Amino acid sequence: MAGHPGRLVGGIEAGGTKFVCAVGAGPDDVRAEVRVPTTTPAETLGRVVAFFAGQAAVAPLAALGIASFGPIDLDPRSPTFGFVTTTPKAGWRGVDLAGPFRRALGVPVAVDTDVNAAALAEQRWGAGRGLATLVYVTVGTGIGGGVVVDGRPLHGLVHPEIGHVRVPHDRTRDPFSGVCPAHGDCWEGLAAAPALAARWGRAPESLPDDHPAWALQAHYLALGLANLVLTLSPERLVLGGGVMARAPLYPLVRAGISALLAGYLASPALNAGLGRYLVPPALGERAGVLGALLLAQRAAG
Amino acid sequence: MAGHPGRLVGGIEAGGTKFVCAVGAGPDDVRAEVRVPTTTPAETLGRVVAFFAGQAAVAPLAALGIASFGPIDLDPRSPTFGFVTTTPKAGWRGVDLAGPFRRALGVPVAVDTDVNAAALAEQRWGAGRGLATLVYVTVGTGIGGGVVVDGRPLHGLVHPEIGHVRVPHDRTRDPFSGVCPAHGDCWEGLAAAPALAARWGRAPESLPDDHPAWALQAHYLALGLANLVLTLSPERLVLGGGVMARAPLYPLVRAGISALLAGYLASPALNAGLGRYLVPPALGERAGVLGALLLAQRAAG
Repeated sequence: MAGHPGRLVGGIEAGGTKFVCAVGAGPDDVRAEVRVPTTTPAETLGRVVAFFAGQAAVAPLAALGIASFGPIDLDPRSPTFGFVTTTPKAGWRGVDLAGPFRRALGVPVAVDTDVNAAALAEQRWGAGRGLATLVYVTVGTGIGGGVVVDGRPLHGLVHPEIGHVRVPHDRTRDPFSGVCPAHGDCWEGLAAAPALAARWGRAPESLPDDHPAWALQAHYLALGLANLVLTLSPERLVLGGGVMARAPLYPLVRAGISALLAGYLASPALNAGLGRYLVPPALGERAGVLGALLLAQRAAG
Repeated sequence: MAGHPGRLVGGIEAGGTKFVCAVGAGPDDVRAEVRVPTTTPAETLGRVVAFFAGQAAVAPLAALGIASFGPIDLDPRSPTFGFVTTTPKAGWRGVDLAGPFRRALGVPVAVDTDVNAAALAEQRWGAGRGLATLVYVTVGTGIGGGVVVDGRPLHGLVHPEIGHVRVPHDRTRDPFSGVCPAHGDCWEGLAAAPALAARWGRAPESLPDDHPAWALQAHYLALGLANLVLTLSPERLVLGGGVMARAPLYPLVRAGISALLAGYLASPALNAGLGRYLVPPALGERAGVLGALLLAQRAAG
């Protein structure tokens, strides 16, 4: 882990289907890792606390970081700091994620969104090394976006919920009405994997490369990403998630962004350099849990 | 100017129709002010340089700040730092804004977008006092947005160009094709004053309060602003500009944002508190030039 010794900490990527837990100090120094299925909060958190308590008995942890699905309360002044708030995930609304770990381990517990943590990890160890301002977008069962500005994860009032922005939706071209339970045809409702499955009546991975689904998918991704460029002005866009495993998508998305920006922003990065500007993640599925380790290291001081 | 002594500096709001120039230390301490029409770069910059050179002979200026129309190059490592880049404004593309002042005055010259400067001024002295993360949007001859994150103006790769995002455009409800020369029906192309004038065939200020123009206008503003909330998560949205002089717009826009967010973000600020979350500017038309003074004070150290 070149140039970054790091302290021994714990990290959790808390997801809707599983909790990925690691003890370590960085990508090349993970000492133990466990996956716990997401069932009830009591069972899941109980098993995860037991893992870290056992590991801490072997060698002390300086802090714990939690990179969680959301929305979550990230306001340290709030009485529900570290709680899941309005998630549609059954049983998890209003659950205190940080408290059980703080009580069981007696160390600082940092919390952020899974995607902010992944953005931090990509910035430190992955596709965004050396950059101060970075956006990480993942397109899978949902669309999530993490934002790092001047090296720090963006929170503001709550935290970004980039998947739920509205993008143009031409119902003549695409009469599909979207699948977001809260917003219908928001970005996630039109372009995450469940939208693809519902629109075309089959699993996205079974759609051949020449299926019209992919041109439409690239169109929606470009719309959302061009808006992110115009709003957040990141130095790089890291785009990953299960849907992006379709390699032909990247060039289509880049061409779409270029057409939408229409040369308005003069940066070479957005013109000839777009191939190095919009890139896949370097850390793959590990970005979330590695980001959780980074959150912990920041909290440990 | 309670709690902020400030140093004597110069500030310029460089606009498409005029340059507003001030010497002072804050909103309650402006020692001289001049307005110069925007004609050719040589004439305009010549008159503005002469003003500041004369003022500096009376009492030295610690620095100069320029809050400019854009897009502009804000990268201090760039050979065209402080230059206007791709503006459609005739004669101003590729013009060096900062150089003539640096050479004539021999002081540090800071440059930012007019809207980032206005956002800074509202955060320091206006509607965003005490907040770390703020978005300022102005709707007039264009739509511009300034962003302050953790007290600092957001630049990233270039700077935000929020007016040029795409928002949903239902051509059945609104067959108008938009007036942005670069993007057609981007947000600015649909909802800035020239779009209103072109869509309805009359000056926006002549449209009565009960004209259907205003419901459609509020709809477009809410679409863009809800996306900003989901992307930047500001602690407050300051919304101004000539078009917002129509008082009935604010409650319509708030109702639109609330409907679009659909309770997804649990913050009270976005629900019952929306009246205090989406607010008019406190500094009015002075925000730009006051922000330029702040840019200068930051550059003076």
